[in-house]
Amino acid sequence: MLTGHQTWIFPNRPVIRSSAAVGGPYEAKGPLADDFSLLHGDLWVGQDSYEKAERKMMEEACELAIREAGMEKADIQFFLAGDLLNQITPSCFAARTVGVPFLGLYGACSTAMESLALAAQLVDSGAAQRVLCGTASHNAAIEKQFRYPTEYGSQKPPTAQWTVTGAGVAVLTHDGEGPRVTSATIGRIVDMGLSDPFNMGAAMAPAAVDTITAHMRDRAISLHDYDLIATGDLGRVGHPIAVDLLKKHNIDMPYERFTDCGILIYHPDQPQVLAGGSGCGCSATVTYGHILRRMRQGELRKVLIIATGALLSPLSFQQKESIPCIAHAVSIEFA
Amino acid sequence: MLTGHQTWIFPNRPVIRSSAAVGGPYEAKGPLADDFSLLHGDLWVGQDSYEKAERKMMEEACELAIREAGMEKADIQFFLAGDLLNQITPSCFAARTVGVPFLGLYGACSTAMESLALAAQLVDSGAAQRVLCGTASHNAAIEKQFRYPTEYGSQKPPTAQWTVTGAGVAVLTHDGEGPRVTSATIGRIVDMGLSDPFNMGAAMAPAAVDTITAHMRDRAISLHDYDLIATGDLGRVGHPIAVDLLKKHNIDMPYERFTDCGILIYHPDQPQVLAGGSGCGCSATVTYGHILRRMRQGELRKVLIIATGALLSPLSFQQKESIPCIAHAVSIEFA
Repeated sequence: MLTGHQTWIFPNRPVIRSSAAVGGPYEAKGPLADDFSLLHGDLWVGQDSYEKAERKMMEEACELAIREAGMEKADIQFFLAGDLLNQITPSCFAARTVGVPFLGLYGACSTAMESLALAAQLVDSGAAQRVLCGTASHNAAIEKQFRYPTEYGSQKPPTAQWTVTGAGVAVLTHDGEGPRVTSATIGRIVDMGLSDPFNMGAAMAPAAVDTITAHMRDRAISLHDYDLIATGDLGRVGHPIAVDLLKKHNIDMPYERFTDCGILIYHPDQPQVLAGGSGCGCSATVTYGHILRRMRQGELRKVLIIATGALLSPLSFQQKESIPCIAHAVSIEFA
Repeated sequence: MLTGHQTWIFPNRPVIRSSAAVGGPYEAKGPLADDFSLLHGDLWVGQDSYEKAERKMMEEACELAIREAGMEKADIQFFLAGDLLNQITPSCFAARTVGVPFLGLYGACSTAMESLALAAQLVDSGAAQRVLCGTASHNAAIEKQFRYPTEYGSQKPPTAQWTVTGAGVAVLTHDGEGPRVTSATIGRIVDMGLSDPFNMGAAMAPAAVDTITAHMRDRAISLHDYDLIATGDLGRVGHPIAVDLLKKHNIDMPYERFTDCGILIYHPDQPQVLAGGSGCGCSATVTYGHILRRMRQGELRKVLIIATGALLSPLSFQQKESIPCIAHAVSIEFA
């Protein structure tokens, strides 16, 4: 049900019946390692290309989530997924393995919440009873596609973020027990003219603030209702910019509960991660692993996840375009 | 409302309030030229890159459709779009121009019906009242991305298809007059092991047949109920393969009313088009231009469009993967 301008309220409160987060070697050394369902010791995941490794992790996350829900693949009615690789091939190949009706999505790193929002909408409206949704990213596959060949060993500025190697997936159902999706705010494109792909956090921060503001307006609620408010992957550069913008707009944000998945996933002193995590797998693994674990343990009751996405391509950057950004927010409650 | 395994029935029958098809120079020489809202005489569309030309055409189609619906951009609640270019940048940049909440999709050439199916689902369920949806492709942008630099002038086998330069967009509303979307069948991935990107029609034909069969099963209807059944872009090689497969499965298809958008859009003797049209813009422009025009003129009452998509990437091809294919079907009625 549409409320306000861009927010869906879900009166039937679809249930996140199960979820799974699969991670790689950098995530295994991070502070959230215990929240992953499965961790891989190397980037290859037993495959002969990084792209296949990403697909493998997505397939593993799907299998784990379906099994945890006590289901078989055939019980799933729709699979909603996307990722950062060209033509979202890891998602498409994983969809071949899952073998159910598939809706491919692309929202860059916002795909985690785009897929959850749409899956919840389908379940809430009765268009589905059991939906699998999720996303993935792979550090080396993304580096070679978006930046430089990994063999160059090129250096990056400290504003750059480190693409998460991981997949996060959830099974949504119309009944059963578990955290419930209560609303979703679909973001607009916000483009402040920034064009530096080594500083995505700064580019995406205004989109996050735009969607947070829309969520408050449409739902007419206070952000103090939430126990945790997490942006997707603004990182240590972008998140403070979002804080500044919120303050400038006089948004009454409980800043002590306002965090970012890209900050949470790595230790600040982990080598190479620079300004923090990014990639589709960032908010997906942090939400479906860490945050949902805390909800299931009763530590958090109501959360808002705002997954941010930078909708550039290497070619649009070369053609000197700025970076169009977007953010989708989903609220999850576990009473 | 989900009926059967993978089909949504839309009891509220969302209205295609307006639509627009923008085409390029090859489409202007084709038999459907008169059905386009706007045709461009050259591939550049006044831009300095083919990618920008594709974006421009998408923006034009959006503007024309919104204006034809008697609306302003601000009246649109959601924009659902995607395309074949890496990171669907033409859609993302067009979404920046439209300026409303955006859901990015990727289904290769099936995006035309993926976006229409999801838009109809949103309107039918009350999650939106006014949705813009569509897709685009550009011959030269796709050639350089998926095949060879255009300057090579490389030759192709006669099974190859010619990517349509065009954009097709529709405005869906919950009320008003116009053709109505009555159901949508979401496809599964079908991969028969084919891997030749110069013969996509053959690879996609089994996916089209799988979705047609699912549509009949889920709706428990005869295909003879339809005045026209059109696949998306199987072309002159793939469409006869679909016919063979349907016959093999004893599907009772009215073959005289079974056609393909990739066959319809060009004259068989147009230079270069080889096995026919393809690309996201193929089924989008043929549906939103030609087929809807025929419906509005009373020539067609019930149609079924089955947009097919080949979910490969240049990299997945280089890594010797086969081509996962998909097809989404949407039924449209105008009483």
